[in-house]
Amino acid sequence: MISPIALKKDYSSLMEKNRELFIGGSAGAILYWDMETKMPPRAVNLRSLQLAFLEKIFHRIQTDPEIGKLITQITNHPDYVTLNQHQKRNVQLSKKSYDENTKLPEELVVETAKQTALTINIWKKAKAAQDYAMYRPDLEKLFNLRVKVAEIFMDVKGTSTPYNALIDIHEPGVTAESISNLFTPMRNGLIKIIDKINNSSEPETGFLRRKIPIATQREISEAIAVEIGYDTQTENAGGRIDETEHPFTTGYYDDVRITTHYYENRFESSVFAVLHEGGHALYEQNLPADWIYHPIGLSSSSGIHESQSRMVENIIGRSPEFWNKLYPKLQSLVNGTLSDITIDQFIRGINMVTPSKIRIEADEVTYGLHIIIRFEIEQDLFNGKISFDELPQIWNQKYEEYLGVEIQDDSEGVMQDTHWAGGSYGYFPSYALGNIYSGMMLDKMTSDIHNWKDMLVSKGFNPVGVWLKENIHSHGNLYDPIDLMKEITGKDLTVKPFISYLEEKYSKLYGY
Amino acid sequence: MISPIALKKDYSSLMEKNRELFIGGSAGAILYWDMETKMPPRAVNLRSLQLAFLEKIFHRIQTDPEIGKLITQITNHPDYVTLNQHQKRNVQLSKKSYDENTKLPEELVVETAKQTALTINIWKKAKAAQDYAMYRPDLEKLFNLRVKVAEIFMDVKGTSTPYNALIDIHEPGVTAESISNLFTPMRNGLIKIIDKINNSSEPETGFLRRKIPIATQREISEAIAVEIGYDTQTENAGGRIDETEHPFTTGYYDDVRITTHYYENRFESSVFAVLHEGGHALYEQNLPADWIYHPIGLSSSSGIHESQSRMVENIIGRSPEFWNKLYPKLQSLVNGTLSDITIDQFIRGINMVTPSKIRIEADEVTYGLHIIIRFEIEQDLFNGKISFDELPQIWNQKYEEYLGVEIQDDSEGVMQDTHWAGGSYGYFPSYALGNIYSGMMLDKMTSDIHNWKDMLVSKGFNPVGVWLKENIHSHGNLYDPIDLMKEITGKDLTVKPFISYLEEKYSKLYGY
Repeated sequence: MISPIALKKDYSSLMEKNRELFIGGSAGAILYWDMETKMPPRAVNLRSLQLAFLEKIFHRIQTDPEIGKLITQITNHPDYVTLNQHQKRNVQLSKKSYDENTKLPEELVVETAKQTALTINIWKKAKAAQDYAMYRPDLEKLFNLRVKVAEIFMDVKGTSTPYNALIDIHEPGVTAESISNLFTPMRNGLIKIIDKINNSSEPETGFLRRKIPIATQREISEAIAVEIGYDTQTENAGGRIDETEHPFTTGYYDDVRITTHYYENRFESSVFAVLHEGGHALYEQNLPADWIYHPIGLSSSSGIHESQSRMVENIIGRSPEFWNKLYPKLQSLVNGTLSDITIDQFIRGINMVTPSKIRIEADEVTYGLHIIIRFEIEQDLFNGKISFDELPQIWNQKYEEYLGVEIQDDSEGVMQDTHWAGGSYGYFPSYALGNIYSGMMLDKMTSDIHNWKDMLVSKGFNPVGVWLKENIHSHGNLYDPIDLMKEITGKDLTVKPFISYLEEKYSKLYGY
Repeated sequence: MISPIALKKDYSSLMEKNRELFIGGSAGAILYWDMETKMPPRAVNLRSLQLAFLEKIFHRIQTDPEIGKLITQITNHPDYVTLNQHQKRNVQLSKKSYDENTKLPEELVVETAKQTALTINIWKKAKAAQDYAMYRPDLEKLFNLRVKVAEIFMDVKGTSTPYNALIDIHEPGVTAESISNLFTPMRNGLIKIIDKINNSSEPETGFLRRKIPIATQREISEAIAVEIGYDTQTENAGGRIDETEHPFTTGYYDDVRITTHYYENRFESSVFAVLHEGGHALYEQNLPADWIYHPIGLSSSSGIHESQSRMVENIIGRSPEFWNKLYPKLQSLVNGTLSDITIDQFIRGINMVTPSKIRIEADEVTYGLHIIIRFEIEQDLFNGKISFDELPQIWNQKYEEYLGVEIQDDSEGVMQDTHWAGGSYGYFPSYALGNIYSGMMLDKMTSDIHNWKDMLVSKGFNPVGVWLKENIHSHGNLYDPIDLMKEITGKDLTVKPFISYLEEKYSKLYGY
């Protein structure tokens, strides 16, 4: 059975297993989406049972010994070297995933799924009630389950610590040490810029608090979606926009959905949520059709994903060139409410930098500091240096020290994010890595299309969208993020382009 | 291994299997709901792959030989007789379902699934093209496959004919013979009433065509939902209302969703869709909590389900007492559009009886004749008395004879319904049985609460809702429908109460 035909057959069978897994996984994603957007509240327990059921079925397929057998037969086959780069990567990714999944006991998987649903539910209630104590026991239970997972993954992945094993889930090949090496110069660079901004005069932002009806904001969302090519309206639409407290993107290829949130007196909050999630959505929709349902046909990493959302939200979406066409449209949609605000005033307002308490509302300069705080706390939780009782206090201290803001209650403090409530540790660094990656991509795009800003004015988002599709999205998951950035830019990871981008932009905006 | 403990353990294991099946099935139902209500159009192929994936998983669990083993061990155990009525019924229902799922050859299942998809597709095209000939070959192929299924089910279920085996799927224990015994007097009763109505003057209905904005109609839906106790709004809501071309109800217990359709110039279409689907939804929501996820914790039959939707839609929902409180609310919601229409005019308008060609648009009097036509044709198809070539002609003759309407083309004739295109034979009778059951239930409710009409005026829907919950919904699937009706009313199936209800109501409304 070591004929070339056997290799071909085994490889096909392995890809068929992957296909089944991605289709099954995408079915589960609809249940999560429904839970967040549409589900009647009474269904919360039933939904946790449904998700646990699917999780169990899914885990059983993921750990089917047939997959292990196929991988062994393929990698041991004398002709294995004749597989092309794509095929080898598919096999390697299958093997990594299989090894991770087979090492987790089914009980642990089911218990984690149940505890995750419970903790997210409690988090919502506790956040509304500003009551961390109500949330702490479940938060800690879930953390302990994640530590168990991390310890098992550490062995499988061969990382040096459990925390690195969790980072590897979101950012394969990246470690806490390499993150520190990037975050230290990033922190210094950001603080310098913030200092200069603090010594300049503040832009006018009062117009951003003007009341815009939710129905109008929904029209604005659709106009933005049309501009960036995220189709929610036509007969061939593969997307839709719904409403959740925390905006998110879910889905793959033909069915990629985003959410946003609407506040009557903060219309820009939804504008940039739609641009941000739209950036994620375009990445998923533009993954190479030829590789659909194969491991290389997925996105690369959370950080690369975040680079796409930040590129669309900040680098493009907060630029005067992007708004050149869209601002008159916005002015007309809001029916005179912004008729006295020039595009220059609008651009300065939406790029106001100010230290704040809430990460998802942070500007692109101070944002990195929010992430550094979470990264440091996660490291200390995993090192056992801090307990969950101390968590709110330490959180508040760091916010005072790094950002100079005073946290009033835990809902605007440690309970602001869903990540830990969902058991997601090692994920936050990816957000700041996304900024770092996006800076490097911007450098490359500028060298490929010198006049991309002019084209943004004359042709709208499309040329940038095409560049992103061809240069970023088209790689799917062919490379781990460090290698992908090397492939795209020819360079090792560096924070410099991102800091330079900020320096140039904000010295101009703030005139320092 | 024949200790009483073994029996208890086997029984628990069997119930755990059932629990898994219901939870998994309810997860699949969310994907169907999403497909009909929210899914971006580009996802249609992905969704069919996701559903096929779940179907495969589900079939594997349903036919798990472990279930067969447990059932055999339980029923062969010397202490089986010591199980209580609920436990025995749970075992019997499990056995019936397992036998049905395991006796069908996989080839036949796959071929039927394929032919069903093909036939539905052709039906849509043929209906649009008014071309029965295009549809006939596939319709006949699918019918022949359903005959094969029916022949296998006849053995499994022990019914006297294949057609009875198909009826048994929807209405366990009911046969074509028992249906005929009910439909003959029903037909005579209905025709008498229709004759009298035809000799009376028609009510005014023009006001039902007045334009009501969709947004207002959505508020009307919510007002109706609140009135009947179908909660879609509070923190403990277990329901929601969405929009589809064909209204439906889906879900179980804590998550039961309905849909409706809105037409600007036919507001009553949505009003009665919400009442109809609301009746289905209340049944599912009120199933006994103690039996949740057990076979006896499900609804009884399609006909019993239909009795609940028709009771709420017609018997209650078209009564002057129900609208006593709600009509002023409706008048205020529509902002003057109905200010010249008295409640008497409104009630006469929404109860207009007129023979028509389309079943789903029929009033509660002529509706039964539409069903009788389909039932007689199904019997003759299964007896081989008529061929698929003759089908349209026979359909048209019967519509002329029974309803006095002339069918112009087969799209408004034999191709109007999706059921046969989907291979669903033996289902139609359940719709009319629902009317018959609802008449018997009304009799019993009237003897339990003599003044229920007064209470409807003074206290709203709630007393009726409580009666339905306690007297109908609380029985779950403890009995097959004939036994259930005996348990509820003390009587064998009879069409009399339904006909008497119609006679009393319409002689008053039409003043004959």
